Parts: sequence; structure tokens; C-alpha cells
Amino acid sequence: MKEKDWTIIDVLRHARHDWMNDIQLIKGFLALNKIDEAARAADHIIVKAVQEAKLCNLGMPGMAEMFITFNWEKHKFLLEFEINDEIVIEKVDDQLVTRFFQSIFSLLDRHISQYSGQHVYTEFFEKEGRLAVRIEWDGELVDRSRLIEQILQLLQSDAMYGEIMKSDDQDILIEVNF
Amino acid sequence: MKEKDWTIIDVLRHARHDWMNDIQLIKGFLALNKIDEAARAADHIIVKAVQEAKLCNLGMPGMAEMFITFNWEKHKFLLEFEINDEIVIEKVDDQLVTRFFQSIFSLLDRHISQYSGQHVYTEFFEKEGRLAVRIEWDGELVDRSRLIEQILQLLQSDAMYGEIMKSDDQDILIEVNF
Repeated sequence: MKEKDWTIIDVLRHARHDWMNDIQLIKGFLALNKIDEAARAADHIIVKAVQEAKLCNLGMPGMAEMFITFNWEKHKFLLEFEINDEIVIEKVDDQLVTRFFQSIFSLLDRHISQYSGQHVYTEFFEKEGRLAVRIEWDGELVDRSRLIEQILQLLQSDAMYGEIMKSDDQDILIEVNF
Repeated sequence: MKEKDWTIIDVLRHARHDWMNDIQLIKGFLALNKIDEAARAADHIIVKAVQEAKLCNLGMPGMAEMFITFNWEKHKFLLEFEINDEIVIEKVDDQLVTRFFQSIFSLLDRHISQYSGQHVYTEFFEKEGRLAVRIEWDGELVDRSRLIEQILQLLQSDAMYGEIMKSDDQDILIEVNF
């Protein structure tokens, strides 16, 4: 499921590359004397970094590493995450949660026909003292009913409670509580 | 010699912290409408990142990791490095070079009485197809003659050729060819 074992140097190389793109954007605005746009780009970088810091502070290093490196690997979608404020949760099994995400992302990879720059959105929040996550994909799928079936199977675990909240023509929204 | 085993999450946390400081600096200039200063700060960030990328591209991941994480550990000095353009070298033993730097930095740590924000400068270059480095410290030292002796001992290795180029009252300049 895991594409590769990331080394520190690999991670820094990719992070630096992303970081350079962000800085180049700011430089571009400055060259055009667009000071407000430059400030907004800087704010956007800070928001991203704060989200990443929150992810790293959940006490789940395996999951954090997986999420941060995901978009540097070859997948059919981009992964986006948002961590709601004030998540105070009991201890969660990092490995179990990481494996769950690996499985569900792997299913999505198999049922998305080709990469088109679309995102899978994940939103972490607290629900009755436990970690909860919403996972959403809004796009075309290959053999959608088989995917739904496989997701339902994956959710049949004692270690979590999950359900498919919505699944219309395109949209799939899953909520899982660990 | 190595202070800790760095995890990917630790490294990202520290790198993110440094980047945030850099971005805050740009934001500060933008808030004061100092567009040239903001652009210069952005350029400075890019120069740092290019140097780090060059370090990572030397094919010596152990040394690169050590240099990049060094200033995140507790030492008596800050480590600065510069990689000259166009270093094309034969294969160098990464472990051997990393151990050499660990030893020499550890010696310096022991002979600098206290942290005062001063840098040890290292400059990598190519010399007759081999990797060479200059290491320079300009500051006070405790038991300086003992330090010189220990550095000379360290340089007595078949795997490298090194000498102390200059050592006056304060300054120590060492050149090593691997």
C-alpha cells in the first residue's frame, strides 16, 4: 500500500520543492508590485503550515507522515486535509488508523480512472472524545458499486465505526470514528 | 556523537518552524510596504534552499542529514555551509565523511565555552576530482592547544588528507580532502 519508505533527505527535497514554489509565487507578485496578493500568498503558506503542524501534533506520526508524503507519490488524486481546532482525543492506534487510510486511498486509486488533479478532502474533528474523519470524493469513478461494497467491507471493523453518509451520482462522503 | 535519531515528523516540524520564521519576515516587510526588502528576504530564502539542495545532491545522504539537522540540536555553535558550484567528484564514503564531521564538531563543542550565536563555516569544493572542505571557526576557545592536537590526531587518517591552514589567536581554518 505504501509506495516507498521515505528518507529524511527525500522528504526534505520534496518539502523544499513545494516551499520554493510558494516563495516563487510571492516573488512573482512582488515583481509586479502586487503587495496585497503577495501578502495573501504568504498568509496561505502560513495556513497550510499550521494545518500540517496540527496534523503532526495529533500524536499519530505514522498517519501524519503518510498524509504529508502522499502527494509526493504517484496517485490518481491529490489528498487534502483539514484539522478542526481543539481536537482533544483519547489515545488512538496510529498504525490501525494509518492502515485504514492506506486501504481506503488504495481503493479510491483503483476506482478513479485517471489523474485529473482532483482532490480527496479529509476533515478531522473530535466526536465525543474520539477522533473522527470525513472523507469526500466528488468525481467520476470506475465500477462505483463495487467500490461502495469494498468500502463497506473495510468499515466492518471493531476498531472503528464508519458509514457512507452520502453517495449520489458522483459524490461519496464517508464518516469514520476511531 | 549524534544527538538523536531524527524522524521524518521531527525534521518536518523543525524545517516548518524555520520556514515560518522566513515567511513572517517577508510578511513583516510587506506590512510596512517595504517591497524591496521583502523581495530580498525571498531571494535569501531561495539561496538557502539552493544550497541545501546542492548539499543533498552530493550523493552523501548521511552527511546531508547531519548538516541539515545540526542547528536543530543543542550545540555551542551554529553550522553554516556553502557548496561551490560544479562539484563533480568520485564516489566518497558517506559514513566516513559523516563520522569525520561528527568528530570535529564534537571537539569544537567541547572547546567552545558557551553558545554565543557564532557560526562554524564550512565550504565544500572540488579539488582534483575529490571532495574538499574548509572548516573555519573564529572565536574564543577553551584549551586551544589541546584542541589543535586533537584535530591533528583526527586528520591522521589514510582516508583523507587534512591540514590546519591557519591558526592564530582566534581563527582556526582546516582544509580536508577526502
